Parts: sequence; structure tokens; C-alpha cells
Amino acid sequence: MTGTGSGTGVDDRLHHVVIIGSGFGGLFAARALKRAKVRITLIDRTNHHLFQPLLYQVATGILSEGQIAPAIRDVLRNYPALRTILGEVEHIDVEAREVHLDEFGKPLTIGYDSLIVAGGAQSTYFGHDEFQAVSCGMKSLDDALALRGNIFGSFELAEAETDPEKQRRLMTFVVVGGGPTGVEISGQLRELSRRALRHNYRMIDPVDTRVVLVEGLDQLVGSMGTYLSRMTQRDLTRMGVEIHLGATVTDMDEDGVEITKKDGSKERIPAATKVWAAGMRAAGLGPILAGAAGAETDKAGRVKVNPDCSLPTHPEVFVVGDLMALGDLPYVAETAMQSGAHAAHSILRRLDGKPTKPFRYHDLGTVAVISRFTAVAQIGPIKIGGFIGWLVWLVVHITFLTGFKNRFGALTRWAVSFVGRGRYERALTGRWVARTKRPAEPA
Amino acid sequence: MTGTGSGTGVDDRLHHVVIIGSGFGGLFAARALKRAKVRITLIDRTNHHLFQPLLYQVATGILSEGQIAPAIRDVLRNYPALRTILGEVEHIDVEAREVHLDEFGKPLTIGYDSLIVAGGAQSTYFGHDEFQAVSCGMKSLDDALALRGNIFGSFELAEAETDPEKQRRLMTFVVVGGGPTGVEISGQLRELSRRALRHNYRMIDPVDTRVVLVEGLDQLVGSMGTYLSRMTQRDLTRMGVEIHLGATVTDMDEDGVEITKKDGSKERIPAATKVWAAGMRAAGLGPILAGAAGAETDKAGRVKVNPDCSLPTHPEVFVVGDLMALGDLPYVAETAMQSGAHAAHSILRRLDGKPTKPFRYHDLGTVAVISRFTAVAQIGPIKIGGFIGWLVWLVVHITFLTGFKNRFGALTRWAVSFVGRGRYERALTGRWVARTKRPAEPA
Repeated sequence: MTGTGSGTGVDDRLHHVVIIGSGFGGLFAARALKRAKVRITLIDRTNHHLFQPLLYQVATGILSEGQIAPAIRDVLRNYPALRTILGEVEHIDVEAREVHLDEFGKPLTIGYDSLIVAGGAQSTYFGHDEFQAVSCGMKSLDDALALRGNIFGSFELAEAETDPEKQRRLMTFVVVGGGPTGVEISGQLRELSRRALRHNYRMIDPVDTRVVLVEGLDQLVGSMGTYLSRMTQRDLTRMGVEIHLGATVTDMDEDGVEITKKDGSKERIPAATKVWAAGMRAAGLGPILAGAAGAETDKAGRVKVNPDCSLPTHPEVFVVGDLMALGDLPYVAETAMQSGAHAAHSILRRLDGKPTKPFRYHDLGTVAVISRFTAVAQIGPIKIGGFIGWLVWLVVHITFLTGFKNRFGALTRWAVSFVGRGRYERALTGRWVARTKRPAEPA
Repeated sequence: MTGTGSGTGVDDRLHHVVIIGSGFGGLFAARALKRAKVRITLIDRTNHHLFQPLLYQVATGILSEGQIAPAIRDVLRNYPALRTILGEVEHIDVEAREVHLDEFGKPLTIGYDSLIVAGGAQSTYFGHDEFQAVSCGMKSLDDALALRGNIFGSFELAEAETDPEKQRRLMTFVVVGGGPTGVEISGQLRELSRRALRHNYRMIDPVDTRVVLVEGLDQLVGSMGTYLSRMTQRDLTRMGVEIHLGATVTDMDEDGVEITKKDGSKERIPAATKVWAAGMRAAGLGPILAGAAGAETDKAGRVKVNPDCSLPTHPEVFVVGDLMALGDLPYVAETAMQSGAHAAHSILRRLDGKPTKPFRYHDLGTVAVISRFTAVAQIGPIKIGGFIGWLVWLVVHITFLTGFKNRFGALTRWAVSFVGRGRYERALTGRWVARTKRPAEPA
């Protein structure tokens, strides 16, 4: 039974690269090592890679889980020298060059020659950790599925509600954070209410749905510049999204949020569903690694690295993607992909006896979808909005999905969703039922 | 905010038909009433219709939830006189003609002029209710998602396991019940292990997966006759499914099952995953209705009805589908569809002052898929196996999915799954993690 897998045939004396994390950073590191004479171990706590830029489409019922989260083992099945381990990293011993992890409750130690840490980011609540319990995050597949249940469940609860005030609260969605994710979720929530849910209800009219987007800065998608920011604001406003710029969320509970505007005035917005798409800090691996290696972190917990992405104290350890603090790089998928590949190439250069090169980021641009046929795109100096921006979005995503076997599925879904009203993934499952059970009821 | 839905515009004086259940019976009853001068209320405890014949494809990662479970509201959005209520029926007062339900913890009473009860079936464990806690059912979307997590999770646990005996147990799947569902699940589990998971693991070889199919009768898919039954047995055996005919499950726990063969000998099969695809009895609504209306039930809890599907004591109440006991009709989707439509037509005939007609079942045949390009089909006197049988399956399912907007999505998935190895929906989410957490660990 054992020993029939091909992994056991790999030469144990080969240089061993351990990669922690199967996001964009980890996956691109593995890809860059495909033909190299190394053996690779990839560790992740989920069994899937996550195409995070499309997470909002899972949350709003357009795509299914599998369409954005292929099994890592399957993506990397043609890497005979790569072994995937499903486990949670608990400690990194940089002196002994060992990763200590929890594999289904059992301890496991994996030694390494080189280590690439691509642990990603998690949400930060700016000192208000209590917000987490009453809002939906946008980082993991579970986040998206919970939000999906909340969205479609809220309309069901609103249809059953007779108190107009409670009904209005159920049909109000507050999105915190005006970056691409916040903008895309807000746009989709209005699309949903204006188009996809049309004629579905008898007691409520989904078009009355209130979508409030709250951003602390003075503009949306700030990284894309003033021109596209204004275009985004105009398009979202036309769609009926209520935008609060220069406003921060100062309180949040089950029933709503309190925002404080720049002039100091406060406004209470009753809302059943709160989406937290603001603020990121390094995932837990950042402090774990920094503590172990005596490395410095920035205020978001990211680990400071050498120009080649390696640790100053331990050059055989590389930190990439959202966990890496290096200059003023944007924390986007593109950075993770490029730095992951760079770390892999650096390891190979060392094995060839060559010095490593500093990491140079190539900005391939940013795209955010606003509505069905509208998007804003920034590619180098070019800034495009409207339908052309949307076409750019489509091309970019189809290109990136190429690595996925399921791009045909996604394309079909999109085609139906753009032309028609398609929101297939609306089934409320046990996950949602469990959430709506009243405390008084027996489980 | 309220009153904007179109439902409130429906004339309250119209004959009110209440339908309980949005399965095949309820949906086809609603369809048959689309152009009638009645108002309709459809009650279900889920928000989706379920295309149950394809549930096994959700369980084995081929299709997503949304592809077989469209939102009922969306399927019926162009029925302005129909209102959908998401709630749990607790009591039916046939004297007052009222349905009492729990709508998100609040009581709701719906009066009716005519009632169609299409509550469906649930699994029966033949007096061994303790089997339910240690096996996966195959009735609801949650069942299928739990089984999916179990299947893909078991391979992960096996890959991490060093004890060969435990590893073997994790890679053994026992399917109880040799009807179409049991046959299809067994076939898919072998397909998965032989083809879809190839090269995915390093410590285990999925081809070693043991799939055991246990059936109490002397043949598989008994309703399809001896010829197809033998063909099914031959094809499954060739695929590596271990078949035990004339065997019953006499014990089942977390670690395996005990089967007792016809000669009285017992065999213990260690298996982490047990699929219960045997035995159906009427859903809870059967006893509720029978108690309220003084109706008789058969030993499976199904309610005995007049030849026109109405209750002998209360002719304004109809019972259809799996909840109905009428002659020796097979309990399949086709019966539910036809009896649901028949009940609706009977109501319309009465409104026209005409007598109702007895229900006559038209056998449109049965199909079960064995492997990628192999199926067995029985259509009237015609019995077909192999590739032609599979083509019949494809045509039948595409035809039925026509009512669904997502047939293109399903077709794409199938195309990729048949030609390639496509098992997209393998993402392990919180649902599975929660199951595998050890009791000792903090939540």
C-alpha cells in the first residue's frame, strides 16, 4: 500500500527546497523549480490554491468554489519531485533548518536546505478585533462561502420580515475598504439587486438594496491614480452605490456600523451584512519567522528582507509575497508571483555558484470590475475605463486562468452571467442554516 | 420598502393552492398551474430545487452545488401569482385548511383551498438509526457536500498516515445499496481513484482504493431487470468494485462495517467512509399529515391516497411523489414529476366542475451511469448497456436540465470530465476541517 507513490523515488540527496504556502507566491516558486535538480516540499493548511482576485465572484454566486480553487496536488501532479503536505506550520527552527508542523493533530518535522516562506496576508481590524466576529472577511474560500450565505440568506430573511425597519437593515450591505476588492463587491451587490434577483421576491423588491462603500482615504482604488479613481466613483455612484470617502468605521455590531467622517460627525448605518475588505497584515507566519530568525518586521508584521528576498540573518530563507517587506512594492497577486519565482531562481543561482540578483518588480497593471461591462484598468502609463477596461479585465483573467483546467467552466459561467442574469451558486446549505438558528432553539 | 413585490398584486379571492416541497413533485405541480387562474404558495425548507439524480456528481467533485440546485425563486420567477416561502412545516390542520410552519423561528399560518403535499423521502436505516451518525446519506445537498469532504479528505489523511492498516481503512469506501445511486457512486469512486487522482499523491497510490458495494437483494439495479443487472455487475466488477449481493449490513461504526451474508457468515470491512444509499421512507411530513387527516400509511410511512392522488378523508389534499402510497409505482423522479402535475390538473378539473381522473404512470425508463462512457438504460421494453446506454443517459439528463439555466455549465463540466480527468470541486472547506478536528483540540 505504501511506497507506490512516485515521490518516494526521488533522490534524498538532492537539494531540498521547502515552500510554505500555496498562494501565488508558493505556486510560482514551485513552477520556477519544475525542471531543476532539487526536491521540493510544499506545505499549506488548505488543499487548494486560491485565485484570490475572483473570490468576490464566489461570494456573489457567480463562480463555484472549484472554479477558483483547484486542488494543489492536481495543479502540481506533473512535478514528480514535489510532495504536498497538508498541515499547519507551528514553528520554524532556522538554526536546525527545520519546519515544525501539525499534520492532522500529529507533529511532523521537515528539514530543508532552502526555505521559501509565502504565508500571505490576513485581515487587520486596526485595533478593533471585535469587528471580526460581526463581519465577513474576504481572504479565504470559507470567507467567501460565509459571505455568500449571508447575502442570499439576508434576502430570504427580508422577504419573511414584516417590520420595515428590520427589512431595510437586512437589505443593507456595508463594504469597508475602497480597494479593488471592496469596489468589485460593491458593484456586484448592486448588479445582484438590480438584475440577478429581479422578479425573485414578492414581499421585497431587491432593487431597494442599499450598498454602502466606506473608504478611509479620499479616493477609491487609490493605487490606480486619480483619473481611474474618479471614473470608478462615478460609475459606482451611477449604479446606486453610496460612497463615503475619508470616513472610518468606529463601531460595528450585529445590527450595523458607525462611521466617523472627516469633519468628526458620526453616522449610524443599520446593516445586517458587513464586508471587511480593508487592511491587511502579514499572516501569523510573519511573527513566527521573525521571532525565530531575529528578523525585523514592519508595522503590518511583514518580514524585512534583503534585496534578493532572503533573510539578512539566514540567506537560505526567502520571504515572498504579502509576507515580505521590501521597499514600497504593492501587495498584489503580481508581486507574490514575481517574488516567488525570484526566490526560486535565486536558489538555483546559488546552486550554480552564482550570486543572487536583487528582485525587480515589473508592474503589469491593475484591473477592477465595476459592473457587467465596465471596468477600470491601469497598465503601466495607460489608464482605461468603461467597456475597453472590462475587455482588458477579461483578457487578463482568462490568461491567468490558463494555468487552471477550469477556465472553460469559468468562461461559460461568465458568458451566461454577462449576457443573462446568471447567479447559479445561490444554494443555502447547512453552513447558513447553522448561522441563522436562534440561540434559544436546540441544535 | 414593502409591497413593491409583484405578489401583493395577486387577487386574494383566487383559489389558493399551497404546495409543500420544491422537489420534482412540487415543481411540476407549480408548472402545471402556471397559466391557471389560481394563486400559489410554495413552501420548502431549503431555498433550492434539487436535481437529485445528479447528487452523486456533486459528492464526487464533478459538479458544483449550483449546477444541480438552482434557487427555487429564480426557477419560478416568471410565476407572478406564485409566492415562495422558506420554512419548515410543523402541522397541517386539514379541518381549518391551514398549514402551520416555522419561518426562521417565527410561527406562520397559511390557509389553503387545495393542498399538494410533495414532501419527499428520507433515508431509513432499517431499525439501525445509529448507522446515520457514522455514514453519509445521499438525499440532500448537505449530504453530498459532507460526502465530498469525506472522500477528498480521506485521501489527504491516508497520504499523511504511516500505519498501513489505518491507511487502508482510509482508502476503503463501503456503499450500502445497489440501486442506481449506489451503483453510480461506486463507479465514480473507482473512476476517481483510477483516473482523476492519478499522480496526485506521493505516499499512496489512489488506484489501491477499495470500493465495496453491498446489496441485500440478489441483483443490482433490480428494477431494471436481470439483463441490465448482470451487465451492471460485470461492468462494475471490471472496474474493480467489490460487490456483495444478498448481504446486509448488521453493524457499522466509525471504523468500518460488518456485513452478514446469506449463508449467515459475517465479514468485517474496515472503512473510514460509509455511504448509505439504501432504503427510503416517507419524510417526516408523512406521519404529520396522516395523523392530522386520519389517513393510512404503508410500512414506509407513505400516505395512502385515492387513485387521483387525493386523500380519502380530505379530497382537497393531494399527496404526490415519494410521500404517496399508490399501487406499486416505482419511487423515482419520474413518478414525482407525473403525480405532481396530475394533482395540479385534478385541482383545475375540479375548478371547472369536472371529475378528477385516476393517475396513470408512464414509465419513461431508468438510466444508471457506470463509468465514463458506460451506462445501463431501460426504456420501456428496450434495454441498452455500454456506450449507447451512456449516450441515452446524456440525452436524458440534458433534456431534463433544460429547465435549468445552467445546462451549459453542466455540459462543459461533463465534457471536460469525460475527455479529461476533471474533478474541479475538491476544495476542502471549513465543513471538512470541523469534522477532522480532534476532540482534544480547542475549537
